[in-house]
Amino acid sequence: MSQESLKGIFAPLVTPFQDEQIRFDWLEHNLTRLSETPLAGYLALGTNGEFKSLTDAERMDVVRTCARLKGDKVLMVGTGCESTRETIELTNRVADVGADFASIICPHYFASRMDDETLIGFYEEVAEHSRIPVLLYNIPKATANVRISATVAQVLSGHPNIAGMKDSGGASLFVFLTVVEKQFSVLAGSANYFMPGLMLGATGGVLSLANCFPEMCCELYTATISGDLPNARELHCKCLRANRAVSGTYGVAGVKTAMALAAYHGGEPRRPLRPLGEQERQAMRRALEELGLLQ
Amino acid sequence: MSQESLKGIFAPLVTPFQDEQIRFDWLEHNLTRLSETPLAGYLALGTNGEFKSLTDAERMDVVRTCARLKGDKVLMVGTGCESTRETIELTNRVADVGADFASIICPHYFASRMDDETLIGFYEEVAEHSRIPVLLYNIPKATANVRISATVAQVLSGHPNIAGMKDSGGASLFVFLTVVEKQFSVLAGSANYFMPGLMLGATGGVLSLANCFPEMCCELYTATISGDLPNARELHCKCLRANRAVSGTYGVAGVKTAMALAAYHGGEPRRPLRPLGEQERQAMRRALEELGLLQ
Amino acid sequence: MSQESLKGIFAPLVTPFQDEQIRFDWLEHNLTRLSETPLAGYLALGTNGEFKSLTDAERMDVVRTCARLKGDKVLMVGTGCESTRETIELTNRVADVGADFASIICPHYFASRMDDETLIGFYEEVAEHSRIPVLLYNIPKATANVRISATVAQVLSGHPNIAGMKDSGGASLFVFLTVVEKQFSVLAGSANYFMPGLMLGATGGVLSLANCFPEMCCELYTATISGDLPNARELHCKCLRANRAVSGTYGVAGVKTAMALAAYHGGEPRRPLRPLGEQERQAMRRALEELGLLQ
Amino acid sequence: MSQESLKGIFAPLVTPFQDEQIRFDWLEHNLTRLSETPLAGYLALGTNGEFKSLTDAERMDVVRTCARLKGDKVLMVGTGCESTRETIELTNRVADVGADFASIICPHYFASRMDDETLIGFYEEVAEHSRIPVLLYNIPKATANVRISATVAQVLSGHPNIAGMKDSGGASLFVFLTVVEKQFSVLAGSANYFMPGLMLGATGGVLSLANCFPEMCCELYTATISGDLPNARELHCKCLRANRAVSGTYGVAGVKTAMALAAYHGGEPRRPLRPLGEQERQAMRRALEELGLLQ
Repeated sequence: MSQESLKGIFAPLVTPFQDEQIRFDWLEHNLTRLSETPLAGYLALGTNGEFKSLTDAERMDVVRTCARLKGDKVLMVGTGCESTRETIELTNRVADVGADFASIICPHYFASRMDDETLIGFYEEVAEHSRIPVLLYNIPKATANVRISATVAQVLSGHPNIAGMKDSGGASLFVFLTVVEKQFSVLAGSANYFMPGLMLGATGGVLSLANCFPEMCCELYTATISGDLPNARELHCKCLRANRAVSGTYGVAGVKTAMALAAYHGGEPRRPLRPLGEQERQAMRRALEELGLLQ
Repeated sequence: MSQESLKGIFAPLVTPFQDEQIRFDWLEHNLTRLSETPLAGYLALGTNGEFKSLTDAERMDVVRTCARLKGDKVLMVGTGCESTRETIELTNRVADVGADFASIICPHYFASRMDDETLIGFYEEVAEHSRIPVLLYNIPKATANVRISATVAQVLSGHPNIAGMKDSGGASLFVFLTVVEKQFSVLAGSANYFMPGLMLGATGGVLSLANCFPEMCCELYTATISGDLPNARELHCKCLRANRAVSGTYGVAGVKTAMALAAYHGGEPRRPLRPLGEQERQAMRRALEELGLLQ
Repeated sequence: MSQESLKGIFAPLVTPFQDEQIRFDWLEHNLTRLSETPLAGYLALGTNGEFKSLTDAERMDVVRTCARLKGDKVLMVGTGCESTRETIELTNRVADVGADFASIICPHYFASRMDDETLIGFYEEVAEHSRIPVLLYNIPKATANVRISATVAQVLSGHPNIAGMKDSGGASLFVFLTVVEKQFSVLAGSANYFMPGLMLGATGGVLSLANCFPEMCCELYTATISGDLPNARELHCKCLRANRAVSGTYGVAGVKTAMALAAYHGGEPRRPLRPLGEQERQAMRRALEELGLLQ
Repeated sequence: MSQESLKGIFAPLVTPFQDEQIRFDWLEHNLTRLSETPLAGYLALGTNGEFKSLTDAERMDVVRTCARLKGDKVLMVGTGCESTRETIELTNRVADVGADFASIICPHYFASRMDDETLIGFYEEVAEHSRIPVLLYNIPKATANVRISATVAQVLSGHPNIAGMKDSGGASLFVFLTVVEKQFSVLAGSANYFMPGLMLGATGGVLSLANCFPEMCCELYTATISGDLPNARELHCKCLRANRAVSGTYGVAGVKTAMALAAYHGGEPRRPLRPLGEQERQAMRRALEELGLLQ
């Protein structure tokens, strides 16, 4: 894949469940509708995809479905496991069925042992054996506070099979942007700092909002890179307010509810996660209506 | 299984690797030697077993090996997954191949959503569908600080298919001991508070030291429950010092090195974890020699 | 002070406020009543004393009041500041007005710089310049997770002017007891692990419950050191249940309410802390009545 | 003070020590040199000022010195204490000697009790009794993770005596900018997100780099607000690299060393903090030379 493929907005796809079963027809519905938007691509098997709640077989079925319906979109797949070996194996299995990039979180079950040297070794070994380019994924709040340091990013940004990174660490995004090599793409992992990141060198964003409001996210991208700052600022503001109403408060269960409000098929989360209550759903509807996001 | 089965010392078995492959012959060697000790049983697929670094197939092979060689020992197996559904499924699969108890950590990938009500619902649903009795496993440092509260333990301790809990949360052990129902067994998850816990109602301990020095651990158990306090205090002290030299400093890599020093087959940890360096190994040998634990 | 002075139960005195002012007459009332109990002594200016909410002048007035009314009790005073220099100065000022020991938390505002070497240097310099013996105070949850490691305790336990430590770190108490020098006293900082600590070498406890139920705490101490285990176990259990109902749930505001229920003068906490609501107060009353702690 | 006063770059002044004593002549030297730069003002008694390591008398002397030499600059002073009462008192004392704004961190010693309602009540009561306008200061890493939520900021941003806030919480800055009232000023607390914040509505920044390289910081401010994006981006990058070499790695001790390299008087930090070693100093010099920041 060329560097071009990491530009724009990516939707971290949800996995829609009904009565605990994956509704693949709903996933297909979502992919079909999203394929008509200007999204750059998808991330399958991420946090919003509840990948930790899927069996190995389900994971492969989800990736296959996404690959089949991705059209001209780029498909990233989350493949980070605790062991180097299993990470490599899963990465190459999803590569075989059509993934374009592997997005890999830090191993973290043995958090106290994950120093910079160990993380560099881990990512280098994975990158060396992976048949598709690798993306680092920094999300300390989900990895027991194990984080990709500026030093780790700097070192790995020169690796020929490490194409970039996704940062959900907050303001660390701005630090990464000043230390990595030129050809290394940095993607923002949240609407909160996507637009400012874009202005400072990020190439795109993986935004949970893109599951329900992909057009708004893409407009924000276009306004920003075309230099239309007044419009970009306004859209940025709107996205942050929407984000606060949706995933900020409720996480993936909130994203699924917002999808339903926007005529996508979010379905339910898998237990022990619980869907929103009726009162929460109504509050979200009102907040999104006030933002003019629902018809 | 009767309540009697949760009394005594349990070894949280390590999975021995060589060149990244499981050496099942080494695991068999360990099990054969441990079967000659007074251990009450084993925990397979725990933190020391690097269960997060095993594939699904490897996990089942490890459990089958342990079940085949367990003799009259009790076999607990770690089966906690992120989803209720997969936890139940894995629990029943290990039950089918010989596990006696399922030890289940808190789901934690969506940590902020794991309130008391959600955890109670999770454990009740798992217990209801599990063909073997369930043990709660509280280990906040490995579960993004999600923890079993005193209230959760109190409520669940009355459930007919929840036999007990293992606590690696530290002094919380003493609180659990004052709130749970009589027939509910509480096991200490560390040598640091095993003996004081035993004096106050705990029924046993799952101690990483039992992988390398099972006799010492069993002596401590016997001295404590027989009321031989002077001897118990001395053994407690020795265990804590050994524990600090072994897993306190190095985690599972340290346990594996200590096993090698004690003529067990620890093997290496799986990458990205790294084995101890030669200097660390020598320091550990000296510390254990000073304690009189090596011949 | 001899080593004998650190044996038994110590009450971490609360500072009673009314309309934001210290009611010294209430503090005197409490001290007078507590002087008739078998308590070994007091800790002034601790967490329960809301020392961070007192002005410098108020702190000195509180210490003077305690010193005047301490009778034959031992008086520890919390004097840990962020700088070495101010810690020494405050320590010697409270020594001048009658403090017997200084209890000193870890500096923590610059938490990331507080490594073992820095902490050892800090405590050694303070001990060298203090006119009264120093106690280390380990309470990671209140010091941004800065903690006294086993190594730091081991090194400092040999210092001639460091008499002991108080541990509110949980199960770390048991580790400290195995590494410190013989003449170094270790006190438990919570009822949760006081009695098991006592059985393994701790010399006493600083228990918030001793503000409202000093007799029960002293009975537990006596039963434990005299080897009356059945009685000690029962009292331990009662203390933990009371502790959970009082400070476990509500912190210092809960201790003050329980004091009022037990005919002491707890007063209110200082804002922004808020006193318990009427419903919370009634729930606590019922819990304590069920334990037979209120007439 | 008008809203205008919160625009631009503010230096969070260090307190220079020599042999543990404040060198007021060095502080005067720094203030005199800084008065010739285009800085908007100063923050006295902040983290970089080691305010927690100063006595009450020293704090007042530092504020008096800053007020005397502030010329036409704006003087903010950190006055957050644990109690509402002492915070108000200190705020009015520094107001009496010339402070223009009080910057107030969240109380945090009783962290678990600091919910949104309590924080709102705290800030409202302080604002009501303060004779100068109040600034909220959000710095979760220094306040035991107590943080100002978007809701708290939104509510308080309408208060007539709360002029704005300083955010050192990272990407939360962007969220605050979308929820607060128009007349409420938001300042970035780190160079890492100062420039992107400025583009989205922040009015200025409190940057530790402004102690040693005030001109560069002011150029970045001017380039950004004048819409000279290419230049702003380049300066932003330079600032982040300098920041990483200075305070990112070493905190306040690093800022003091960099000041010395830039011909200011940083002095030493107060113990237990330690100054940089010679090797660290040389590494910093090289890093700053490479950035062209030293002659």
